[in-house]
Amino acid sequence: MLDKTTRINYLFDFYQSLLTPKQKNYMALYYLDDFSLGEIAEQYNVSRQAVYDNIKRTEAMLEEYEEKLGLFAKFQERDQLLSRLKELLGNSSDKVLEIIDRLENME
Amino acid sequence: MLDKTTRINYLFDFYQSLLTPKQKNYMALYYLDDFSLGEIAEQYNVSRQAVYDNIKRTEAMLEEYEEKLGLFAKFQERDQLLSRLKELLGNSSDKVLEIIDRLENME
Repeated sequence: MLDKTTRINYLFDFYQSLLTPKQKNYMALYYLDDFSLGEIAEQYNVSRQAVYDNIKRTEAMLEEYEEKLGLFAKFQERDQLLSRLKELLGNSSDKVLEIIDRLENME
Repeated sequence: MLDKTTRINYLFDFYQSLLTPKQKNYMALYYLDDFSLGEIAEQYNVSRQAVYDNIKRTEAMLEEYEEKLGLFAKFQERDQLLSRLKELLGNSSDKVLEIIDRLENME
């Protein structure tokens, strides 16, 4: 089981285009840049509680999107299948491996 | 270029989980079951114009989701890569082909 921070980071990656600019900024500062709630509050001139509430709501939204669209779950499933394919095809031509690489690097 | 109905059908497939129940029903009746606007209006006891407006708004939402998440575009890209892989690996073992099939059948 992934720890919560890693999971939220993945979900943010998949669904950030569906968030508002403010939600995106708070999440990026908190999860990617490791700012504290207090530091974000200071930067945006709002209360620490307001930042906390916004981030909690955004996390819930990300989980809701994942429940509906399952992009992260599908990504994990695809990733496993591609790894097995690579194992089975270890000695294949460069062309084959290049296509598998491209598939692996798609979201 | 896909015709509009086919494209909307695909987008509906990818994003219907993000629509409201009413939006889903109207779209399914209109696009999947080929009901006319008048028939849907009668069934829901609303005006033909109301059904039309709802469907147009939903179509715009589907295009907006595609712009943000690009699931249909990625599906097409992946599908092409997998077809090429299959061509290159036409004589491979059943195991390899089974994995490619599973990848092809994921959304």
